[in-house]
Amino acid sequence: MADKRGFSGVIAPVLTPFGEDGGPDTERFVAHCEWLMQEGCTGLAPFGTTSEGNSLGLDERMELLEEIVDSDIDPAKLMPGSGTPSVSDTIVLTKHAVELGCGGVLMLPPYYYKAPSEEGLYRFFSEVIEGVDDDALKVYLYHIPPVAQVGFSLPLIGRLIKAFPETVVGLKDSSGDWSNTAAILEAYPKFEVFPGSEIFLLDGLRKGAAGCISATCNVSAAAIRNVYDNWKGGDADQLQAGITALRKAIQAFPMIPALKALVAHYRKDPGWSKMRPPFTELPAADAEKLIKQLADAHNFRLDFAKAA
Amino acid sequence: MADKRGFSGVIAPVLTPFGEDGGPDTERFVAHCEWLMQEGCTGLAPFGTTSEGNSLGLDERMELLEEIVDSDIDPAKLMPGSGTPSVSDTIVLTKHAVELGCGGVLMLPPYYYKAPSEEGLYRFFSEVIEGVDDDALKVYLYHIPPVAQVGFSLPLIGRLIKAFPETVVGLKDSSGDWSNTAAILEAYPKFEVFPGSEIFLLDGLRKGAAGCISATCNVSAAAIRNVYDNWKGGDADQLQAGITALRKAIQAFPMIPALKALVAHYRKDPGWSKMRPPFTELPAADAEKLIKQLADAHNFRLDFAKAA
Repeated sequence: MADKRGFSGVIAPVLTPFGEDGGPDTERFVAHCEWLMQEGCTGLAPFGTTSEGNSLGLDERMELLEEIVDSDIDPAKLMPGSGTPSVSDTIVLTKHAVELGCGGVLMLPPYYYKAPSEEGLYRFFSEVIEGVDDDALKVYLYHIPPVAQVGFSLPLIGRLIKAFPETVVGLKDSSGDWSNTAAILEAYPKFEVFPGSEIFLLDGLRKGAAGCISATCNVSAAAIRNVYDNWKGGDADQLQAGITALRKAIQAFPMIPALKALVAHYRKDPGWSKMRPPFTELPAADAEKLIKQLADAHNFRLDFAKAA
Repeated sequence: MADKRGFSGVIAPVLTPFGEDGGPDTERFVAHCEWLMQEGCTGLAPFGTTSEGNSLGLDERMELLEEIVDSDIDPAKLMPGSGTPSVSDTIVLTKHAVELGCGGVLMLPPYYYKAPSEEGLYRFFSEVIEGVDDDALKVYLYHIPPVAQVGFSLPLIGRLIKAFPETVVGLKDSSGDWSNTAAILEAYPKFEVFPGSEIFLLDGLRKGAAGCISATCNVSAAAIRNVYDNWKGGDADQLQAGITALRKAIQAFPMIPALKALVAHYRKDPGWSKMRPPFTELPAADAEKLIKQLADAHNFRLDFAKAA
């Protein structure tokens, strides 16, 4: 069951592998989830942006979530993405996640119509929360304006916390704007705030952040966890510098295809690099360059020896 | 069955009424569809942007479509919106529409991830068309970059026409940019192109457009149809000036709430104005202003005397 303290630590928005038929590959998916937990992730956020989550159908998302819950992973450590442009589909996905015992959901705002009013967004979340109608529901707002275009203003966050204090408990800030993360942390100190990149992990923890939820946790969870575990220590800044440099080296490439290329390479499983449209795979030459750059400059490799 | 000549004329992206419980109101919906056909629409495009289509769940869309097909309206005259951010959900909705005998579908590009490559978009549509796998499928591309952010370049349109000449047969251009519509008409003369606003109807018809698919067809189909029927006549420019002026008066207000406010007023049915989040209703004072302005300056009213 969900821990009352909620989530904290290092959470991976899990990559979604696809099979030859174009459908999600459940075997590769569950193996990756289990490996991420072994690597030090404290939780998993399947069906986020990095997961190509919005490229999955409703049924595909629910089936994949059931597969993780059927594994050895505690559902309380799962925070699946459940936001869609419609109140009704968002209720379907959210209710399903809560019934499976997920510790929380990561909820996008409705992202089709642009520049909605604060009142309209407030009503959207109210209708979803009332539609799910379950005290076990814990909502983490998913603020990612560079992709969703629609985001959460400080007043909207405050209004949702006030109306649903036991339900709206946190936020992932993928704005890439540290001043926004800092403003949320200052305005709502009890709110569980996760920067969307480990670049802001140490700064975040020092200001009361709960950890981070970051794409690159798919390939560098152990190093990120090391910063999380030692953030009060004397070498915290040095450790942070290491994960910041690695992140910057990876994000010089298209992030999601690059992460899949790394997993494919070190798993010796070329099929892992498959993307679902509208994404395309990282070109082979770029993948080679990425792998070499990371190995040379960051001594980077992935170890799947212990993996299933 | 679908007419081999495809769609042409005046097509309404049907407004979706909601009931007190927040769900789509099927009775009001079907009555509105039937009234639109009586008013002179040559076809209907439910679940477009004006329909709050992306605020509906998959099941809601399919149930509403079945309700129209169960009415007296010929399914060959229906072009439901079936595009979603995922290949799999898009296949579900599209297959359902084709199986019901719909003359076409209006397909958004995957709109969550921004700035996808042309290759990625090409693969998306290829996978959907191959996944539906039905010769009866007729796809109308839905180009609406002001909302979807993701759109169709001229080369992408050309590539899709070339790969699927019997399937990718037309496009709705809601860019609001006449030069873009003109460029598509010039590049692909056999393609069925519909400007997304009647402001471009006469210019479009003179360049080979198939008609228009416009939000305001929900309240002014008869006048728009009049331009369509008489575009070669001597008073075509004068008729066009009338529908252009009316459109501009309406779009000075938030379009979708304004259209619902007009239907609610003239149907004497306040419930019709209900919006689904993230939209909110037009404030009462604005609705009064809109109704008065249209009546005073455009002699505008809606007549539901013949309606069910």
